[in-house]
Amino acid sequence: MADFHFCCSECGLEYPEDPALLVCPECAKSQAPGGATRGVLEVRLESLPDRWPEADTRDPRFLEAFLPVRGAESFPDYAAGGTPLTPAVRLGKALGFDRLWIKDDSRNPSGSTKDRASLLVAAKALEYGLETVAAASTGNAGTALAAVGAAAGLETVVFVPATAPEAKLVQMVAYGARVLPVEGTYDDAFELCLAACREFGWYNRNTALNPFTIEGKKSAALEIARSLGSRRPEVVVVPVGDGVILSGIAKGFADLRAAGLIEDVPRLVAVQAEGSAAIAKAWSAGAAEVRPVPGAHSIADSLTVEAPRNGRLCLRDIRESDGGAVTVSDDEILAAIRELASLSGVFAEPAAAAALAGLAAAREASLVDTPDAIVLLVTGSGLKDLPAAARAVTRPEPVPATLDAVAARLRLP
Amino acid sequence: MADFHFCCSECGLEYPEDPALLVCPECAKSQAPGGATRGVLEVRLESLPDRWPEADTRDPRFLEAFLPVRGAESFPDYAAGGTPLTPAVRLGKALGFDRLWIKDDSRNPSGSTKDRASLLVAAKALEYGLETVAAASTGNAGTALAAVGAAAGLETVVFVPATAPEAKLVQMVAYGARVLPVEGTYDDAFELCLAACREFGWYNRNTALNPFTIEGKKSAALEIARSLGSRRPEVVVVPVGDGVILSGIAKGFADLRAAGLIEDVPRLVAVQAEGSAAIAKAWSAGAAEVRPVPGAHSIADSLTVEAPRNGRLCLRDIRESDGGAVTVSDDEILAAIRELASLSGVFAEPAAAAALAGLAAAREASLVDTPDAIVLLVTGSGLKDLPAAARAVTRPEPVPATLDAVAARLRLP
Repeated sequence: MADFHFCCSECGLEYPEDPALLVCPECAKSQAPGGATRGVLEVRLESLPDRWPEADTRDPRFLEAFLPVRGAESFPDYAAGGTPLTPAVRLGKALGFDRLWIKDDSRNPSGSTKDRASLLVAAKALEYGLETVAAASTGNAGTALAAVGAAAGLETVVFVPATAPEAKLVQMVAYGARVLPVEGTYDDAFELCLAACREFGWYNRNTALNPFTIEGKKSAALEIARSLGSRRPEVVVVPVGDGVILSGIAKGFADLRAAGLIEDVPRLVAVQAEGSAAIAKAWSAGAAEVRPVPGAHSIADSLTVEAPRNGRLCLRDIRESDGGAVTVSDDEILAAIRELASLSGVFAEPAAAAALAGLAAAREASLVDTPDAIVLLVTGSGLKDLPAAARAVTRPEPVPATLDAVAARLRLP
Repeated sequence: MADFHFCCSECGLEYPEDPALLVCPECAKSQAPGGATRGVLEVRLESLPDRWPEADTRDPRFLEAFLPVRGAESFPDYAAGGTPLTPAVRLGKALGFDRLWIKDDSRNPSGSTKDRASLLVAAKALEYGLETVAAASTGNAGTALAAVGAAAGLETVVFVPATAPEAKLVQMVAYGARVLPVEGTYDDAFELCLAACREFGWYNRNTALNPFTIEGKKSAALEIARSLGSRRPEVVVVPVGDGVILSGIAKGFADLRAAGLIEDVPRLVAVQAEGSAAIAKAWSAGAAEVRPVPGAHSIADSLTVEAPRNGRLCLRDIRESDGGAVTVSDDEILAAIRELASLSGVFAEPAAAAALAGLAAAREASLVDTPDAIVLLVTGSGLKDLPAAARAVTRPEPVPATLDAVAARLRLP
């Protein structure tokens, strides 16, 4: 059992565990409607292991050592995380990087890194005896919640923008979630979910609001550090929408340094879509505040948010890591889908391929150098958004079933 | 380094390793065009480990102990296998089974169990210094070959029926394969691939032809046995198209018994689609021969073959395991997609969900009993065939962004 308390990431006030507590009540007083969340709470564990657990990273006994749960038995039978960290030798050679790895979080159960956060939120809901968990989601977070809910026997309600990709909608409905496609943007869905949780007494999994979402996502950082051992990563490239994944990665490395299990934390490079770049703009301007981007748009639906809810904390985490932020265009994202798949065998959704596109941008901006040990976090599967992938490739025309036709098509001598 | 030779599954003749050898030349003399393959070769390892390797099942050092490669370094950096075996407690309760597990092979890198075979075939191609590997595929095998080829730096050529699902085509093109959608059936694509490999000197990965496809797929059985330990499975339910996956599972358990690592092999239950049930028909009739099913059809594209190439060996393996075969309808498959997803959090493509539908059929046929320890092999991800999943669920209509609309939609008091 890990004892813990909450600590406000802005004012530093501390609070005991409380299922009803989402953000710091003091800082929330200055919350502007639709703006970045004020007073995001961080989990502070009273103790951290001073050596790596013997259990495999996929084992609940590994997780219980680092996550704020009563014990390994808090976790439902849902095999989130434990994804491979693979050397991307061909891709690295093609790009001129000597030490490049892919952390392939598309291989989570529902196909995205969001499974990590949903697993912890579900574990907490089970501990608290709550029956219904709700979330607003551009797609992946809601899908992950629906999936773990199915495994754990929790009711799930998911608010999505009505424009969410078909694949994600079908998948979360199949998992048995009660899905509400909201007429409006992700931000509208977020506010409606917040109000509905208050009204109907549901547990709220919204990112940058439920402190366990950042905390759950940190397991990816634990696994990266565990896999690489002494070959510590110097840079981790992270796609950023509302900024929760990056803050989760930062929290994981921070906990490991506090535990004495690593010496240095890697630089974190945030990659945003050009049309949805609130955090990158604030970083470039050296601003303290993240201003919403009305009409935010990108082929990467998972990166498209007008007001990054976790923007303030994400900005802090980028700066504290001595990292940076870059933006990438839709065309660069589409090219990166092809490049990543054909040079590493990893098929990524647009938001995830953005990490690779961002690597090139980060080199141009001198945020990374070719000898750096670099990890690309691939956050979701290309199968999550086939229409986007279809735009990235040329579909071959049918051929007659003859050898001549084969030779002609492939231009064989 | 594992020494090995080939042994004909029909006449028992033995052959040394030879990249050009696909089937037993003696038995191939009686091969009928388009019929089940005669003389499928099995790999016989000269030695097997007498204890479980210390390495994790995901580690090439685990695989080298059981697979016919020169060493762990033969494997490209492609993290196939090592998928979770998860207790399906809620699903088991709903169906009345006390001990039910899901082996979730949808969590392979390209989303299907075919990655296991492609990994071994790629390792052998690299050992042999071959540059181009080709395959005929209903979709998943070719996609897996394309993916591992991208990681390994092998050229890949994939022959698919022109009717293959969009998702699988887009995915394999993204991986950089040269894809040829053949005007005709899977069987036409199979014959064309065979001829092209002879003509152009490519290495042929066709299932039930390249002996390493069955051998590669056996790693799923190794992992099941390793995970369950003394809680040995009594039944494994396997979706069957051409029968190679089932024979791979059978080979894995047979090797483990020969090694003394398990005492008994589980009963293998083959699940076929009603419209493509050549093997199940032969099993029911007690026949020695598997007759082709002209016009074979099913919503499960991965199960749709007119002539199951590995039919003869699959039939032998079902019988030797004291197992059986059942058929399921398209409607049962669609219902199973929903049931599996909403009671276990595993989202399966139609062919994979067929395993669950088949479990009900197997109980009715008294092939399994409720106290049996049962493993369902989920062979591919639901994201592989969204249109099928969309038929299995009802898409929710958009709602206005108001609490009243939420309460009305969810019928809250």
